[in-house]
Amino acid sequence: MALPAHVRLVEVGPRDGLQNEQRPVGVADKVRLVDDLTVAGLEYVEVGSFVSPAWVPQMAGSAEVFAGIRRQPGVVYAALTPNMKGFEAAMAAGVEEVAVFAAASEAFSRKNLNCSIAESLARFVPVLDAARARGVRVRGYVSCVLGCPYEGEVAPQQVAAVAGELFAMGCYEVSLGDTIGTGTAGKTRALFEVVGRAIPRERLAGHFHDTYGQALANVYASLLEGIAVFDSSVAGLGGCPYARGASGNVASEDVLYLLDGLGIHTGIELQALIAAGERICAVLGRDNGSRVARARRGA
Amino acid sequence: MALPAHVRLVEVGPRDGLQNEQRPVGVADKVRLVDDLTVAGLEYVEVGSFVSPAWVPQMAGSAEVFAGIRRQPGVVYAALTPNMKGFEAAMAAGVEEVAVFAAASEAFSRKNLNCSIAESLARFVPVLDAARARGVRVRGYVSCVLGCPYEGEVAPQQVAAVAGELFAMGCYEVSLGDTIGTGTAGKTRALFEVVGRAIPRERLAGHFHDTYGQALANVYASLLEGIAVFDSSVAGLGGCPYARGASGNVASEDVLYLLDGLGIHTGIELQALIAAGERICAVLGRDNGSRVARARRGA
Repeated sequence: MALPAHVRLVEVGPRDGLQNEQRPVGVADKVRLVDDLTVAGLEYVEVGSFVSPAWVPQMAGSAEVFAGIRRQPGVVYAALTPNMKGFEAAMAAGVEEVAVFAAASEAFSRKNLNCSIAESLARFVPVLDAARARGVRVRGYVSCVLGCPYEGEVAPQQVAAVAGELFAMGCYEVSLGDTIGTGTAGKTRALFEVVGRAIPRERLAGHFHDTYGQALANVYASLLEGIAVFDSSVAGLGGCPYARGASGNVASEDVLYLLDGLGIHTGIELQALIAAGERICAVLGRDNGSRVARARRGA
Repeated sequence: MALPAHVRLVEVGPRDGLQNEQRPVGVADKVRLVDDLTVAGLEYVEVGSFVSPAWVPQMAGSAEVFAGIRRQPGVVYAALTPNMKGFEAAMAAGVEEVAVFAAASEAFSRKNLNCSIAESLARFVPVLDAARARGVRVRGYVSCVLGCPYEGEVAPQQVAAVAGELFAMGCYEVSLGDTIGTGTAGKTRALFEVVGRAIPRERLAGHFHDTYGQALANVYASLLEGIAVFDSSVAGLGGCPYARGASGNVASEDVLYLLDGLGIHTGIELQALIAAGERICAVLGRDNGSRVARARRGA
């Protein structure tokens, strides 16, 4: 299978990344981060989340962030909306695309979403229905696709079942997340092989964590399976809640460096992306999690 | 092409790694490191270097290290010997296998070895001759195979020419080193495609640096090209002299995690390898450069 000519990077730093950072970031810095990212050429940014601030304090102010950003033509600005209350708040804030989040592991679903997989999917039905009625596209996430912190191994067939339900429900794209970063290249290929029988591969995305250093090898393995959409986080924002001090989301800069090297078009300018990451790292007072950014800084 | 069933890891931490660490390590700690590595199952360890201590002070005491290690049956303990003086010192120290080091880039050769590529190769001829006469195997290194800090791009044909000369001269294996870590998966495959026409692939090894985070993707790309020998450094010992604060050698633990995940046999036990890395990092007072080690520590 030939490598895809174009890859879309879904930037999850402002949401998935900042949600897992210790230090809270104010609305102005979030707005600046989103704007920096779109200036760098990102065509899809997950801006925030409409959830109870009691559960996720880092995502308070998502409506204000949506109000503050300078919308670029052709860029999708999305938000996570786990339920109808969140969906309605997102619509009130002028959000044009939303996402829902399920798990492939029963134990992870219960610990993280406080409900079974089936209950979480049932909760998304009214969100998908309401979105369809308003012409709003919905992206689906499945977590723990290559391992669960509580259950260990997760069968690809189980991932295919959950992803297939999200797709059948109306999600136009399903992102498969290696939440704990234990996946390796061969298992990644096998996963897309199995899930690709339930959902067309052009409707699948890869979401890799670099906790065990495997993320870029997994991205390359996915490209070889025809996957052309990847989630990543500028500067590797967001640690790993399951291993203190370890890496979480793969850094967007490092994925882009790989794609540039492979001659795959993304429309993203590396130096501008690095600058966006350096700026938010200064705000957070944390080291930059992108190896490319660190190498360029030291060179 | 099917993935190899067995991969040999060439552990370069005690030599290539420690040589590039700021803090000097005493003989006893070097001996302990080498012994820890072979207990973990490494079958090939580059123990030290026989060069002038004026040039490489970190490698002083290599003879004492060779005298102190507990040799395990079936393990190769090698040393770098850039010239006849070093070769003779290595023989006096009871070294059984040696290595020579050339560059694929003319500028790098002049800056690092103080001579042209042709001159460096000519200097190896008596070493190879003497080694052959004594029945000592010689491994060859070529650096800058996917980029040079002074010249930028390096043509695969140029790498093939230098590697081919080392092979013709008698090196039983030639390791291709991405010294500055700028290589990406597609270029890695193209490199082995070209060099594989000059030297049988089972005589080639990959030596990747993780400066830009690409090392494991490059290892996976190499496996897809039938390469079954990789150099790596426990705990990612050895920084990158061309980018301050950036990563250098890929961590052995992270390569092993990938190989284990692919079901490729190495004979190495991950937990024991991690322990060896943690111990030497404590001696050096540095953070562990292996993501696997950090993830396991935090989990």
